[in-house]
Amino acid sequence: MEVLGIVVEYNPLHNGHLYHLQESIKITKCNYVIAVMSGNFVQRGEPAILDKWQRAEMALKGGVDLVIELPVIYATSTAENFAYGAIKLLDSLKVVDCISFGSEEGSLEKLTKIADILLEEPPEYRKHLKKYLENGLTFAKARELALLRITGDKELSKTLQTSNNILGIEYLKALKKIRSPIVPFTVKRKGALYTSTKLEGEFASATSIRKTIKDHTTEKIKNYVPSFTLEILERNFSEGKGPVYFEHFSPIIFYLLRQGHPLQDIFDVAEGIDNKIYKAAAETNHLKELIKLVKSKRYTESRIRRILLHLILGIDKRLFKEFDGPNYIRVLGFNEKGQKILKEIKKKSYIPIITKVAQYKEKISDTRMFEKDLFATDVYTLAYKNFGISKLDFYHPIIKL
Amino acid sequence: MEVLGIVVEYNPLHNGHLYHLQESIKITKCNYVIAVMSGNFVQRGEPAILDKWQRAEMALKGGVDLVIELPVIYATSTAENFAYGAIKLLDSLKVVDCISFGSEEGSLEKLTKIADILLEEPPEYRKHLKKYLENGLTFAKARELALLRITGDKELSKTLQTSNNILGIEYLKALKKIRSPIVPFTVKRKGALYTSTKLEGEFASATSIRKTIKDHTTEKIKNYVPSFTLEILERNFSEGKGPVYFEHFSPIIFYLLRQGHPLQDIFDVAEGIDNKIYKAAAETNHLKELIKLVKSKRYTESRIRRILLHLILGIDKRLFKEFDGPNYIRVLGFNEKGQKILKEIKKKSYIPIITKVAQYKEKISDTRMFEKDLFATDVYTLAYKNFGISKLDFYHPIIKL
Repeated sequence: MEVLGIVVEYNPLHNGHLYHLQESIKITKCNYVIAVMSGNFVQRGEPAILDKWQRAEMALKGGVDLVIELPVIYATSTAENFAYGAIKLLDSLKVVDCISFGSEEGSLEKLTKIADILLEEPPEYRKHLKKYLENGLTFAKARELALLRITGDKELSKTLQTSNNILGIEYLKALKKIRSPIVPFTVKRKGALYTSTKLEGEFASATSIRKTIKDHTTEKIKNYVPSFTLEILERNFSEGKGPVYFEHFSPIIFYLLRQGHPLQDIFDVAEGIDNKIYKAAAETNHLKELIKLVKSKRYTESRIRRILLHLILGIDKRLFKEFDGPNYIRVLGFNEKGQKILKEIKKKSYIPIITKVAQYKEKISDTRMFEKDLFATDVYTLAYKNFGISKLDFYHPIIKL
Repeated sequence: MEVLGIVVEYNPLHNGHLYHLQESIKITKCNYVIAVMSGNFVQRGEPAILDKWQRAEMALKGGVDLVIELPVIYATSTAENFAYGAIKLLDSLKVVDCISFGSEEGSLEKLTKIADILLEEPPEYRKHLKKYLENGLTFAKARELALLRITGDKELSKTLQTSNNILGIEYLKALKKIRSPIVPFTVKRKGALYTSTKLEGEFASATSIRKTIKDHTTEKIKNYVPSFTLEILERNFSEGKGPVYFEHFSPIIFYLLRQGHPLQDIFDVAEGIDNKIYKAAAETNHLKELIKLVKSKRYTESRIRRILLHLILGIDKRLFKEFDGPNYIRVLGFNEKGQKILKEIKKKSYIPIITKVAQYKEKISDTRMFEKDLFATDVYTLAYKNFGISKLDFYHPIIKL
């Protein structure tokens, strides 16, 4: 059993994702695939357009054998935390041989070189990084320039300009940090940039697909997603279960901010950003406008959204400090092959597998991380139109294909 | 200067309200009118359809000379607390000679007789009341039956069946309790019952008018409201400032309930209603459905809405215990005659008059009650569509006619 691990959001699953999965299977020669997937909220600091079970179904229909949820505290954190949580989880399964991630770079050489430097953090690098941060640059930009200063290699530092390279480097860092035996691979990304908002080319970005769904209908995306994605989206939309957008939670965010709910314990809150957020919340009723008002060279929109999301979900920085990676394996879905992998995991892994949520208190020693996943679902389902039930994690069956 | 005091919600001001005001002026022979008016939330446990400034404008255009805000903790409480807060406030102005309220009964004799009994609470009455409450009846029904038991007077006890009589009796109780020199009058209500949801007759109820606005447009209500009400409604709706409904706050309510936000410190929460509310919030996403699930013989819809509203506004029962009536006079609007009354109040009253909100901390010794009004506005304005500003109390000018 050769097992490939991938880290995905599938928000929603599109042709570019399918290409990546198929290429990854080809180059790693694995015959089993596990996907660690964000749950109901994603790394951009937003709700996913459809809930985790619908996206798990997409994953299985796309060729994944086993879908495991990335706990929300990692799924909605910085690229570094996101990658660390995902890799730590894949490693802890004790059955994964390779991982494969998409990158703009398409080969591991430069990415590994950068990962090594960033992990080691030589004093010279740190000095420059600190200086650039003090000058008000975003973390990403400061890192790129600091790398340039110590290597003098413009081609190398430019690698840090695109989001999939950045995430890939974080995977490599995490693998190295935990001394994982998992072998990394990368597949060159094809088509539009991750952040592109236009539907174009052979592969459209998930961002442009979500935008098209929001502005129009699902009709226009049919050339960019597999038919099962389209079918799952349409089925759920017609049932009132999505599309879910951050705006659905706008009243809650403004309510908490106008109430003066404390922000300073939230991860990534520093340098007076909290006061800036309170001030903006007093000046507008619109989430987009609020984010625009707070945005700066230092604070990107995603970073602000993640702060607001952590405010709603009650995720504070202490939670990160008290855990070293996920302490449970939450199964969202599997096919027959996935069932076989699960049996292997049961034999080899030292952390509990959660297939029946009702048993979580007996299985998990420190339940705080898992309970954030449960609460995240309770918040997420508030955006459903014709369907209201809380504690859906307790009721929703695992997706079996 | 003969001053009439009235207690109103004007949600919105309609022909029945105008009739009451004009009749009241006639029978009391007063030449000045002060209205104590609910702010942004009303006694049914709901937001008002338009904010307090728009409704103050209606009041002034309808013939009121001075509009004073009833603090939200009273405005959204039981009939007894609502009336006590309003009467205490009117009394504390030290310029009010008469009050006049609408009632189904139309004369004071029976109402006064009942008020005396309810205020005195003879042991026999209390015994019956307790028994009926233990049998699970609403407070209103238990009171009616207990009164019947000790008086044997069916006509008398039936008086307690309609909401305006009930409120009137509470005004009379409050006047007596605080030994106010204010002389009460009552005007027989004409037209539809307060709770009627159908537009009909000469005078339609505010409930039916709100329902018509919600289901259709303002067009259909034009025979039931003065033209200035229609104009104010249409102007504000076109600016995105209303109509505001309880549903606007639904995400906040469900968020707080699913988070397990404590309910037991809220006024009127007892007998396990809190657990019933949590349970219902887990079973539906819809506020109406939630209220229906919790509703019982004992808990009316209004009572449940008031609990949910106090949850959002953070009003707990301790707040009521620590104040004996409003400790400030918040002016919402006045005309020239109102300005004269204000001068008189300044001379005679012992509690601070708030015309400039920015000065509230210097003027009010215990600011907790006032700060609930400020927060209530911050919550209310979240429902505005195209207009976002918090702390509106600090910016909105007083309405001057």
